[in-house]
Amino acid sequence: MIVAVINETSAADKNADILAALEGRGHTVVNAGMQKSGAKPELTYIHTGLLAALLLNLKRVDFVVGGCGTGQGFLNSVMQYPGIFCGHIINSLDAWLFIQINGGNCISLALNQGYGWAGDVNLRFIFDRLFAVERGGGYPPHRKDSQQESRQILTTLSGMAHIPLAQIVRRLPDQVIAPVLNYPGTVELLDLNTIEDKMLKEALVSRLEKSHA
Amino acid sequence: MIVAVINETSAADKNADILAALEGRGHTVVNAGMQKSGAKPELTYIHTGLLAALLLNLKRVDFVVGGCGTGQGFLNSVMQYPGIFCGHIINSLDAWLFIQINGGNCISLALNQGYGWAGDVNLRFIFDRLFAVERGGGYPPHRKDSQQESRQILTTLSGMAHIPLAQIVRRLPDQVIAPVLNYPGTVELLDLNTIEDKMLKEALVSRLEKSHA
Amino acid sequence: MIVAVINETSAADKNADILAALEGRGHTVVNAGMQKSGAKPELTYIHTGLLAALLLNLKRVDFVVGGCGTGQGFLNSVMQYPGIFCGHIINSLDAWLFIQINGGNCISLALNQGYGWAGDVNLRFIFDRLFAVERGGGYPPHRKDSQQESRQILTTLSGMAHIPLAQIVRRLPDQVIAPVLNYPGTVELLDLNTIEDKMLKEALVSRLEKSHA
Amino acid sequence: MIVAVINETSAADKNADILAALEGRGHTVVNAGMQKSGAKPELTYIHTGLLAALLLNLKRVDFVVGGCGTGQGFLNSVMQYPGIFCGHIINSLDAWLFIQINGGNCISLALNQGYGWAGDVNLRFIFDRLFAVERGGGYPPHRKDSQQESRQILTTLSGMAHIPLAQIVRRLPDQVIAPVLNYPGTVELLDLNTIEDKMLKEALVSRLEKSHA
Repeated sequence: MIVAVINETSAADKNADILAALEGRGHTVVNAGMQKSGAKPELTYIHTGLLAALLLNLKRVDFVVGGCGTGQGFLNSVMQYPGIFCGHIINSLDAWLFIQINGGNCISLALNQGYGWAGDVNLRFIFDRLFAVERGGGYPPHRKDSQQESRQILTTLSGMAHIPLAQIVRRLPDQVIAPVLNYPGTVELLDLNTIEDKMLKEALVSRLEKSHA
Repeated sequence: MIVAVINETSAADKNADILAALEGRGHTVVNAGMQKSGAKPELTYIHTGLLAALLLNLKRVDFVVGGCGTGQGFLNSVMQYPGIFCGHIINSLDAWLFIQINGGNCISLALNQGYGWAGDVNLRFIFDRLFAVERGGGYPPHRKDSQQESRQILTTLSGMAHIPLAQIVRRLPDQVIAPVLNYPGTVELLDLNTIEDKMLKEALVSRLEKSHA
Repeated sequence: MIVAVINETSAADKNADILAALEGRGHTVVNAGMQKSGAKPELTYIHTGLLAALLLNLKRVDFVVGGCGTGQGFLNSVMQYPGIFCGHIINSLDAWLFIQINGGNCISLALNQGYGWAGDVNLRFIFDRLFAVERGGGYPPHRKDSQQESRQILTTLSGMAHIPLAQIVRRLPDQVIAPVLNYPGTVELLDLNTIEDKMLKEALVSRLEKSHA
Repeated sequence: MIVAVINETSAADKNADILAALEGRGHTVVNAGMQKSGAKPELTYIHTGLLAALLLNLKRVDFVVGGCGTGQGFLNSVMQYPGIFCGHIINSLDAWLFIQINGGNCISLALNQGYGWAGDVNLRFIFDRLFAVERGGGYPPHRKDSQQESRQILTTLSGMAHIPLAQIVRRLPDQVIAPVLNYPGTVELLDLNTIEDKMLKEALVSRLEKSHA
């Protein structure tokens, strides 16, 4: 699985902890956001939410590990986009239940609030449980079918309620999309040339050019 | 302030605890969802998410207290719609930070996971803090402006990324919207006749008629 | 390892969850307390604290899993006796840190407060971490020696600050010791005939006889 | 009420947060332990446990706010002494339940584990609830009498199971008692001249002299 780690500025000092906690699990880890709080260029949760949504919708990654100080900001940001199902994860039990019941493709971690000594161990425990069970496997087992049905309706709803991503990309204010597209590494990750969805490809190319203007 | 309490089926047995915890705060409380787990007609988090979104977008209520077993399902459901900013709230500190920093209009409670003895007291403590500080007042105080700016961008984003609610209402599958519109009390709460947005009014009237057919 | 599970009355309905969570770990589990809240004869945390202390000091068991509604009552009860080092354990991270740093022989679980749906899974996660690392192994590793030193001083302190257990047993009020000694299974577990400490053996035999009078 | 704040070395950097959170409550706050991690002279939880026990047993203070990295070390240290009833307190609900149900005279805070951003607010919330209700008032109210009975038995037990404090003071190893008696401010706080218990007074005077030798 390809897992993107995407940190915004306020909790970017925890980036190294997340990377360390993800090590040795056989996943390809893409460190797509910030690595140090306050570094330049800076990404807020507004930006990391968009970046997460682009990477997931373009299937450049299978899963996004995001977050912010409390986890609520990134959560509300990334959930604005279609095709995102994000859990707010504080501990390993949250992770284990969310991945089985809700089968999401994204988690938002609280990386400042309640993140003290041994917070790095807590991250490790979270990933131990997140990746130990079947995504969407259902919990308890006998509720697997009804939980799966809810997820499928949610997926349908997400498509119905949102404008196609290509149009969203065209509409976004510069202050939202430019810092994302110009962020070191983003263009390589998005790999614009190989995007199959022509509309989305053109929208991104157009915004990228505009952001450089 | 008008506060809607909206429970789905799995945690509806906690509805009475929520109502009790909201008492005596000077708010008008609207109990719009289920009151007993497994009762008929039944609402899942798919339905309560839509109901919450309708009540907030129509300004029938100022705030929604929702939730489900873990809080993640309702969160992901209600966040599909425009104009919703929802926190996943486990304790009173979460509530106090979320309302000041993120200034949301909705919370999703974990009403089965971690909800044991004195869970009712925890709800009371959550509301004590949620309603004690200024929504969007900022925390810490010196970050008020930048937090407000993020919220405004998020509001803009929500409008850009979503289809207008009237069209969403027209598109929704029957299994999502019919149980909501037919739920006892919903029609009175929505008060279709006084909806100013003509498109939305017509969409709801149309779906209501269809749901009765 | 021999692990005693000792429930008092208020949270005894969680006894089955604890037993299930301990299964399949290769430990011998002794179910020494209550199995159902409110059953007769009844043990309060005053009694289960004494029972835990007797089993540990007589080396009938290597570890005690106790608790009560909040975990604070059993904790304060069992800690009255010599040779007890007890952690208040809410989640798997607590367990993992406590067993390595403090190297205790007892834990007190919160079995009503915060014990909701999936509380049984949380117990399993707690035991997964409690039994996965070396007791007193130290965390972080470079602090192993100083943590071990603190534990040794604590052990010395415990011996200095307490009256010998034999005398405590002689002094205890009937209402404390009689329900423990008369509790089904206690006498077999204590196995009075094979107690090497003569004073303690005599004290227990004497109290047992008196409790039957 | 006189409240002593007693920090050991590993979490002494949180001392200022505790003092700030206690302000404006009408209590006299005595800052008896460390104020900065790693400062000299250094107190470990072995020392702060003894200091807390001395201050409480001599009635120099009414309540002790202690703690350590996880809260488990100070808890196990202070509980070695007679007359101590200590709760392990992580959040405001713990505080509110403990003070009413267990009516203790001491709390042990986790000051590194889980202590992140807004940890200072969490402390304030803890004290808001700790000092807002009657110590030993009982919760739920109808269980007041039986909870009070348990506390009284526990008090009796504590006296029966421990050696008199004067003898403990005489027995303690130098490495435990000398750093406490020599710690700046301790002698003034203990106010040896006015100690009524002659045995304890003599024991402390004797150890103080010896510690200076």
